[in-house]
Amino acid sequence: MSDPAPLRLGIAGLGTVGAGVLKIVRRHGALLAARAGRPVEVVAVSARSRDKDRGVPIAAYAWEDDPVALARRDDVDVLVELMGGTDGPAKAATEAAIAAGKDVVTANKAMLAVHGQALAGAAEAGGRVIRFEAAVAGGIPVVKALTEGLAGNEITRVLGVMNGTCNYILTRMEDARLPYETVFEEAAKLGYLEADPTLDVGGIDAAHKLALLAAIAFGTQVDFDAVAIEGIERVTIEDIEQAADMGYRVKLLGVAEMTGRGLETRMTPCLVPVTSPLGQLEAATNMVVLEGDAVGRIVLRGAGAGEGPTASAVMADVIDIARGTRVSTFGRPAAGLAAATPAQTATPAPYYLRLELKDRPGALARVAAVLGDAGISIDRMRQYGHEDTAAPVLIVTHKTGRDAVDQAIAALPATGVVLAAPVALRIENV
Amino acid sequence: MSDPAPLRLGIAGLGTVGAGVLKIVRRHGALLAARAGRPVEVVAVSARSRDKDRGVPIAAYAWEDDPVALARRDDVDVLVELMGGTDGPAKAATEAAIAAGKDVVTANKAMLAVHGQALAGAAEAGGRVIRFEAAVAGGIPVVKALTEGLAGNEITRVLGVMNGTCNYILTRMEDARLPYETVFEEAAKLGYLEADPTLDVGGIDAAHKLALLAAIAFGTQVDFDAVAIEGIERVTIEDIEQAADMGYRVKLLGVAEMTGRGLETRMTPCLVPVTSPLGQLEAATNMVVLEGDAVGRIVLRGAGAGEGPTASAVMADVIDIARGTRVSTFGRPAAGLAAATPAQTATPAPYYLRLELKDRPGALARVAAVLGDAGISIDRMRQYGHEDTAAPVLIVTHKTGRDAVDQAIAALPATGVVLAAPVALRIENV
Repeated sequence: MSDPAPLRLGIAGLGTVGAGVLKIVRRHGALLAARAGRPVEVVAVSARSRDKDRGVPIAAYAWEDDPVALARRDDVDVLVELMGGTDGPAKAATEAAIAAGKDVVTANKAMLAVHGQALAGAAEAGGRVIRFEAAVAGGIPVVKALTEGLAGNEITRVLGVMNGTCNYILTRMEDARLPYETVFEEAAKLGYLEADPTLDVGGIDAAHKLALLAAIAFGTQVDFDAVAIEGIERVTIEDIEQAADMGYRVKLLGVAEMTGRGLETRMTPCLVPVTSPLGQLEAATNMVVLEGDAVGRIVLRGAGAGEGPTASAVMADVIDIARGTRVSTFGRPAAGLAAATPAQTATPAPYYLRLELKDRPGALARVAAVLGDAGISIDRMRQYGHEDTAAPVLIVTHKTGRDAVDQAIAALPATGVVLAAPVALRIENV
Repeated sequence: MSDPAPLRLGIAGLGTVGAGVLKIVRRHGALLAARAGRPVEVVAVSARSRDKDRGVPIAAYAWEDDPVALARRDDVDVLVELMGGTDGPAKAATEAAIAAGKDVVTANKAMLAVHGQALAGAAEAGGRVIRFEAAVAGGIPVVKALTEGLAGNEITRVLGVMNGTCNYILTRMEDARLPYETVFEEAAKLGYLEADPTLDVGGIDAAHKLALLAAIAFGTQVDFDAVAIEGIERVTIEDIEQAADMGYRVKLLGVAEMTGRGLETRMTPCLVPVTSPLGQLEAATNMVVLEGDAVGRIVLRGAGAGEGPTASAVMADVIDIARGTRVSTFGRPAAGLAAATPAQTATPAPYYLRLELKDRPGALARVAAVLGDAGISIDRMRQYGHEDTAAPVLIVTHKTGRDAVDQAIAALPATGVVLAAPVALRIENV
């Protein structure tokens, strides 16, 4: 029997993750070959700069200035796209690879969240696969768990903390009792933030990931525009501390759920019980919860970013391809994905409200009347001692619609007792 | 284009899990076909009794009294073996299926822990696959995560709580402050125990699972005999309460680790920090921790048993086969699995010691001298108030070898101050 043909990779993008992939291939050649049933080789690379020190030598690989040329090389079987970006070279190289009959492994959540349907369709028309384990929750094999491990389930809900930088900022604010701005600067210095930090703290990066998981979970076309997104920029240390006082932690939480009103997807700061697995998630760790009708609730936790974890996810996809595994991009043929009907309103939930009231008799009664008019009933309320004329008041409501909360907030200024813009955060008891 | 051929299942064993699989296939026909790319059908079944009410009709399926005949049927593509048992009909049917050119999906950890190497070799020689997601940790897709999701990693350690019944008993003892015997009876009445309960409480069932994960993790032949097994039968409510007082919970914990001394696999009651994810694991839930050189630590949590979760795992394997995925049983060809060299000693760890000492001057000094002679140093010590002549003493040691602990325990009676057999439990700070 002749030796099996190697699987030949062309890597476009040699940042942190690309360098991590090269290190794994170089370090674990024999191990990968044993597991994949054939050698896995890097034959060519492409990046912005050829000379940058990446902690790993690249002279042995063919060099391409143009990632599209890399994707088209005859000696490349799989394009490993690690450049990032919704459009531009990443998309051009991915399309070129598919057109040239190559499979694609990518970590690019932005590209797939926007162009996933078209790219998956093109790949499948050509008998090619696009795999993207590294695009969601770093090293946690959550795409595989959802697409394959829970394939016998009707998925009822997917939720989780999917942006390590935001979770780092929120937990660091709480631990060090520091304001958002200070911790944001720290995170920037530590290199935790994307070049455009609003991708992280604005919730966009995490929303990309949620949109991809929702497509797999519910068999719908990726619909990033339908995700209700709110970032963590407005979360204050007061909210974090007062939420803790009520038994909650603030997390940037993504939830995708198929409801009678359509597909609900949101990535917003939420309060979760401090005793829950999500509430206990520290630092840059990610956690994804998958709920299915047969399996119940599966919780996956691990590093959501970084060289090793993300490269680990890339290599899982590479080895799947080397083993001959062929699964549709979103778990079923792209042509079979239904257009999602986004839910126009969010599922009712308890809300946390923080108000600054004038310290005068009857102030609280006026607020309660406004909430009552909006149909909101109060579960718990706390008024804090204070030294000036503003009295901080925390309210946890019973389950209510977001529209009722918005209605109440709009009506509060007319009471004449509210000093600052009220804060409203959804509570997820998961 | 003609419609794709259905994947035709023959199910041997219609207990809880078998009924669960039938329910999923009946309920989710369209969903499974969309995901698998072809219909999944049950064509024939076999069980001990044809007439038992299983909550799901079976008249539409061909019936075989003999599971071996089922396995050989021309209209069966995949044998789904859900009978259980190390040998007997399960093994005979599995061998017959392989010989007849069928793939096998099984939930049978006992059979694979003992005969896995031979069965995997036979399957691969015939170009067939054996898949066993349901054999380990119920609905948690941990076999897939380890075999595929972390395939780019050198796995450094696998650990976890893999027997829900034992975790139920231990957490129930703590919550209700009940002795082992009482909770064991409760568990039996609730139907939580295997027909032979020593499989559960003796740690054997969990050790089967650990042996399978170790084979995948380290590329070694399954070596169930090498697992150091200790059950939970001797864990007392005193140990649980006093461990809690020191900040620990008692768990039946499996650990598989490749050390410089060989492959270490053990399934024993251990103390874990009460604040750790493992320490917080309640009731019949399972948790598996996978550690790899690139990915770091991945934690997976979910239901470890039950109709829905286990059937979910069976269906994941079925859909993989329907999709054409072919992965070697233990993640690399059976012929390439190395014989494991079992480590002769366990990695040093802190130990928890519980002693009952005579209440007389110098008793503690004598114990400390014995520990010192064995090379064991004390990290923390607690002596409890008492009303009789026996003084309970808890000791947490610094890291030490199990042989040193055994040496000390053997030497303690000669001090003349020890009233009962000392308890020694390993502490895993994970």
